[in-house]
Amino acid sequence: MVKLVLLRHGQSLANLVNEYTGWSDSPLTAKGERQAHAAGRLLAQQQLEFTDIHTSVLVRAIKTANIVAEELNQAYLPLHKTWRLNERHYGSLRGWNKDATRRIFGKEQVALWRRSYYAVPPQLPTPDRERRYAQLPQSSLPLAESLAMASARILPYWVDEIAPHLLAGENQLVVAHGSTLRALIKYIEQISDVAIDGVEVANGEPLIYTFDNRLNLQNKQIITK
Amino acid sequence: MVKLVLLRHGQSLANLVNEYTGWSDSPLTAKGERQAHAAGRLLAQQQLEFTDIHTSVLVRAIKTANIVAEELNQAYLPLHKTWRLNERHYGSLRGWNKDATRRIFGKEQVALWRRSYYAVPPQLPTPDRERRYAQLPQSSLPLAESLAMASARILPYWVDEIAPHLLAGENQLVVAHGSTLRALIKYIEQISDVAIDGVEVANGEPLIYTFDNRLNLQNKQIITK
Repeated sequence: MVKLVLLRHGQSLANLVNEYTGWSDSPLTAKGERQAHAAGRLLAQQQLEFTDIHTSVLVRAIKTANIVAEELNQAYLPLHKTWRLNERHYGSLRGWNKDATRRIFGKEQVALWRRSYYAVPPQLPTPDRERRYAQLPQSSLPLAESLAMASARILPYWVDEIAPHLLAGENQLVVAHGSTLRALIKYIEQISDVAIDGVEVANGEPLIYTFDNRLNLQNKQIITK
Repeated sequence: MVKLVLLRHGQSLANLVNEYTGWSDSPLTAKGERQAHAAGRLLAQQQLEFTDIHTSVLVRAIKTANIVAEELNQAYLPLHKTWRLNERHYGSLRGWNKDATRRIFGKEQVALWRRSYYAVPPQLPTPDRERRYAQLPQSSLPLAESLAMASARILPYWVDEIAPHLLAGENQLVVAHGSTLRALIKYIEQISDVAIDGVEVANGEPLIYTFDNRLNLQNKQIITK
């Protein structure tokens, strides 16, 4: 039996002011830091020992991962930071208040962008040119992503960097984002394109999956205080 | 021209109470955290862009590295954690108050252990059996180290993991420990076995080395407020 823990970062400033963030950096709020510490303590109570922690290249997830690793007394673990675990790219909705987009584009359209598996938000005119993505081919940088598109960039990381560790019996911790984790949950639990609309992941509430040694799902547990 | 920055972790609890620590974990004090933030801001003022950060598997160095990376707005950088950058192993002096060892063993003996390049402190009866060292052959785990012995385990990391990046023109940040950094400084500045006794590295004060593209040392700068 091996464990995979999925954890969404603590509350970010963008979460607090109800803005789309995607690939932008938004710092943790004080509440977000408290949520990260609390999640770390909850996992410490489970006496889980990990061999790896995986996160995105976005500061809200990285900081959450560092806080959790410290609370676990496992700060020495390798922390793998990858763009493949970044939040879904919200295209030109980024930086917009979610209520404002509803007023401008209509409730139905916004619900579609947010929840439909295939809807792509309005695209950026050009991709992000940030130093942290300098090693990526320009064609890999999204202008905007549907959840299906985000899933397509996340799953290679699952196959190459997470699943092999689980198959080797090594517990893995993934600290990432709402949509990233929805994509992983959809894959792991084999949820349909339609039913995934109803799945939400709360900030700082660890999901623990237990697999057998052939990576068949045995159990799912959400830990809260 | 390429830059290497060496930084000793902020004040640890063991620093504060004047104890030998070595491979034990001792958390940063509040002052130590402030020193880490200040060091990060000093480096940010230099507008340095790194491609890698290297640290030990000890929490005081890891936490300092994370704080500095955040202050630099470069939290997305890979943080390589390695036992090879651990502090010198102080053997059975670990956990002892430094003044107490002077009373028991005499000032001269303690000065020798602390400052002579070749003196080995009293050994542990058996090596540390900690989870973070589980992947290492038992024979690699020291019972106690002279600075020469610590240097011998640090330099392979320099050769394999730091120097190649510098030769490729990529700025590197190393966040480590007093003795680890003395070993690196001795090597980089070609300081004699005797003269290294007089070299001290202060908590949280970055040393910036500039090299040409063949790794010849051009300049050294210590940054303080």
